[in-house]
Formats: sequence, structure tokens, C-alpha cells
Amino acid sequence: MGRITTLRPVTRIALGEGARRRADTLAVEEPLEIRIGGAPLAVTMRTPGHDVELAIGFLVSEGVIAHRDDFRSAIHCGGPGTGGAENTYNVLDATLAAGVWLPGADEARRFYTTSSCGVCGKASVDAVRTVSPHDLAVDATEVDAAWIAELPDRLRAGQAAFEKTGGLHAAGLFDAATGEQLVIREDVGRHNAVDKVIGWALQEGRLPLRATVLQVSGRASFELVQKAVMAGIPILSAVSAPSSLAAELAEESGLTLIGFVRGSSMNVYAQEQRVRIDAQARGEVPAREGQAGR
Amino acid sequence: MGRITTLRPVTRIALGEGARRRADTLAVEEPLEIRIGGAPLAVTMRTPGHDVELAIGFLVSEGVIAHRDDFRSAIHCGGPGTGGAENTYNVLDATLAAGVWLPGADEARRFYTTSSCGVCGKASVDAVRTVSPHDLAVDATEVDAAWIAELPDRLRAGQAAFEKTGGLHAAGLFDAATGEQLVIREDVGRHNAVDKVIGWALQEGRLPLRATVLQVSGRASFELVQKAVMAGIPILSAVSAPSSLAAELAEESGLTLIGFVRGSSMNVYAQEQRVRIDAQARGEVPAREGQAGR
Repeated sequence: MGRITTLRPVTRIALGEGARRRADTLAVEEPLEIRIGGAPLAVTMRTPGHDVELAIGFLVSEGVIAHRDDFRSAIHCGGPGTGGAENTYNVLDATLAAGVWLPGADEARRFYTTSSCGVCGKASVDAVRTVSPHDLAVDATEVDAAWIAELPDRLRAGQAAFEKTGGLHAAGLFDAATGEQLVIREDVGRHNAVDKVIGWALQEGRLPLRATVLQVSGRASFELVQKAVMAGIPILSAVSAPSSLAAELAEESGLTLIGFVRGSSMNVYAQEQRVRIDAQARGEVPAREGQAGR
Repeated sequence: MGRITTLRPVTRIALGEGARRRADTLAVEEPLEIRIGGAPLAVTMRTPGHDVELAIGFLVSEGVIAHRDDFRSAIHCGGPGTGGAENTYNVLDATLAAGVWLPGADEARRFYTTSSCGVCGKASVDAVRTVSPHDLAVDATEVDAAWIAELPDRLRAGQAAFEKTGGLHAAGLFDAATGEQLVIREDVGRHNAVDKVIGWALQEGRLPLRATVLQVSGRASFELVQKAVMAGIPILSAVSAPSSLAAELAEESGLTLIGFVRGSSMNVYAQEQRVRIDAQARGEVPAREGQAGR
């Protein structure tokens, strides 16, 4: 339970040097079935650990729950007292508060489709905007571009606390007011790492996540922007490229979307008013010695 | 329809140089709903283009179809003659041959779950092995490690034929006997790029894809290994890391799994007997001038 990495024998080949057998560290991937009151809701392939956060974050992203009180408890099926078979810790049964709306079989697709042939990006964007309980437009958070530029390195430094596999995505939440790192989570799936961060936040009573920045290790898809919007996060920053629909959803939802945050440069794809470019970043005054903070 | 990239205004910030507004090329992401005989089966967020291949590859990966004759036709819903609303080209309705088994609502999860609390990686691996119509163990394909080392560059060169966005995954199929590149497909989703390659192969009457190598641009997850196994591909090569379950499924299914193919080195995670290391690769003879092919 909670194994993030595992060792496995591998043949390392270097041309001109031959092959040798050695142990290699791999990111663990295992299925997790999320159940609500015993009824299966979804299966995701994830890295074990922080499963309750993952399930909560998934439910927030899908619009099922939005507040700490909506969630009661969760246990790994087959655990103590359930009399089940051997516990694989790959089934998590969640109990929600009375009255919380439970999605039906067709509801999981509601973010993407309409009942006609009109399935399109615009409908997907509208669906998220309709379902989201948070209005990002009211969040007047501003951050310095120079501070954003530091976040990928801080995320990597946080990952280094775990073993390195080269195979884990990471998502980190940072406080835009204090600059503080709030939480970092890792997973073979980028969407799972983000769900774990959002699940952590709900349990801490921090939703909606006003005045925060979510930094992710890879690309920014529609799905990641959706998750940020559903959690009330005003700024999403990605190391790599966003998709067209990610940028559209960000713009329409009031989310600041930053991509290609590499070294001392970045691209702002939506809602750029939250990114401050001070005189120093504009090149009007020389950089201070040893500047690092905000 | 078929738009792979789109232009969008973006604010480029370089610290010390300030910000400027410019157009940036983004990878297009749009939902695709796959229907069978009018009944919705799945929705995936994908890059438009090669939608029929995508749907076919998805159906092969899920074990619904395995031969060219299993698939009849597919049209974008709302297209000519259907009298529908405006065609968004985001709904594809496929017609399968009479007698092809149609998955029920619960069947889509069959690769991952059992009916008890025994959900685990082992069960997932066994499920794929049970469902797959192909036995990879009979495929005695061998390839030179030096040839594998060239594939990531060849994949990137093939991608360059399209516009560069930094945001598209690619999957390419190569003939292990001739060294020839058979097909390259791109998508915001790695799994979609692989489905498009497999769909192309079914339409060409090439399934099972014996004596081929599938090269992918990113990591190797359980899902990608599953797709390769279901298509009868004997060798999967990835630029980045595999997960633990990807390596396990590869070993159990007889698939050769190669990862971290970078420069002149690589790791073989499963079924290494298909990778030849000749005297030159072992460093026993000097490299030939201008060597490039197999």
C-alpha cells in the first residue's frame, strides 16, 4: 500500500559499450476502483498512495462534491471489519453526506457531450462553466512573472523527496500571497496528481482554492483546466504546451493559463492580467544580486 | 475537420526583456464521441483527423474487433444524407459486421476490474492476456539495438511534416524486416495516437502486426502496452519511462518493452531476446564510417 516506486531487473544497452543487467526503479501503476456507497463509479490507473485524496479530487472535478461536509469517509474495501477477501488496497469505497447528488451512468460524460450531434469543444467549455460552483473572475490574485518562473524547479525539488523514476508526473499547489508551497503530489497520471492535490485541499477545508497557483509537470489539457476551474484555482502553470481547448476553457472560465514555463521565459495563454511584469522583468532595471523570492 | 493545430494570441514573457504579444501555434483538442450503430460507446478528447482510424484502433484495443471484415463503415454523424444538425465532425458512428459482439455498459471496465474486491494489477494483466486474440510468443522478430536507437529521431522527423506545437504526442510503426517507416500519427493524447496507428493497420489488412516496432514519443503505460498486445505488435519502444504494470504486462504477454531510448542508449524491460547487440554495439569492433541503417 502506498508503494510509489518498485525495483525491476532491466537490461541497459549503451551502443559501443554493450549490455548489462541491473535493477531499475519504476513508477508503480495499479488500478483503483472508486465506489460510492458500494456502487462502482470509476476505475483509474494510478500510483498507489493518497487514494482518499485522489477519490475526493475526482469527485470535486466531476462536480459531485464541493465542500468538506459533502464527504464523510472512505475505506479500502476488504479492510478491517469488512470481512472481505485479501485487501489489494485497490478498491476505495466512499461515503458521502446525505443529500449529495449521485451521478448516474450517463452523467460521467456530461462534461463532453450533448444529447445531439452537437458534440464540440464549445459545448464542453459551456458545460464546465455551467457546472462549476466557483466564479474565478472575482479572484483578483496577482503574481510576479519572476516567481512563476521558479515554480517548475520548486516542483522538481519537491519530487526529489521521493525516489526518482523519470516516470512520475507531479502537481504542486503554491500560495500566491506568501509564496509558500502548500502540497505536492505525484502519479503516473497527470490528472491523478492534480486530483490528489484537490482532494488534499478539500480535506483541509481550503476549497475554493483562491489565491493559489497550480504548477504541473507536463502539458495542460482540457481536463487539467477543468479540474483547476472546479476547485476554484485562479492560475494554472504548466511546464509544457496547452491544447487549444485548454486555452479556450481557461479564457472563458477566468483562469490564468501559463505554459512553457522554462528557465526565464513563459507564455500566458489566457487571463494575463494576473501576471505582473515589474520593471526588472521588463529589463528596465538590472537584476538584483541573488534575487530569488517574490 | 482534421485541423491539427490552430493559432492563438499569446503573451510571451522573457524575464529581463519584458512581454510581447504574438501568435502561437497550439495543438487542437476536441471531443470525439464514438458510436456503434447509433449507440454512444465512448468519448475521448483528441486531435481531429484520422477519426475513423482512431475509432477502429479503440475497438481493437478493447477487444471488440480484430479483423478488417469486422468493421464495415463509419460516418461523421450529421454528415451528408443524415439530415442532422450542423456537423461538428466530433461524432463518429461506426457500423460493424453482423455478429460482432457489442460491449455492454459494464464491459468497458473488464480489463481492469473483477467482480470482487480483488482489483489489482495482476488481474488486469490476466484480463488482457485472456482477451487478446494474438500470441506474441510465436513472433520471433529480432532487431538491432542500433536500429532501435534511431527510431525516436525518425519519429520526430516524421512529426516535422506537420506543424510544430510542442504539444502533440506521436506514435510510429516501423517494419522490423525492412526498417521501413509504415505510418506515423499524432494526437494530444498518446493513447489516441496509438489507436490511430492500429486503426490504420486494420484498414490495411495488416493485423496482427507481426514483425513491427511501435515507437512512441512519451512514456509507456499499462494502457499503451495493452494496445500493442491487442494489435499483435511484438516490440514497443518508448522515449521515456514505463510503469511497473506496463513492464509486467509486457513480460507476461511476450511483448518486448524498451524505454528511455535516448541517444545511443536504452533500457529493455521485458522479453529482451528480440534485441540483438552485435559486436559493434558491444564495443568489440570500431563503428563504421557513416553507419546509419540496420
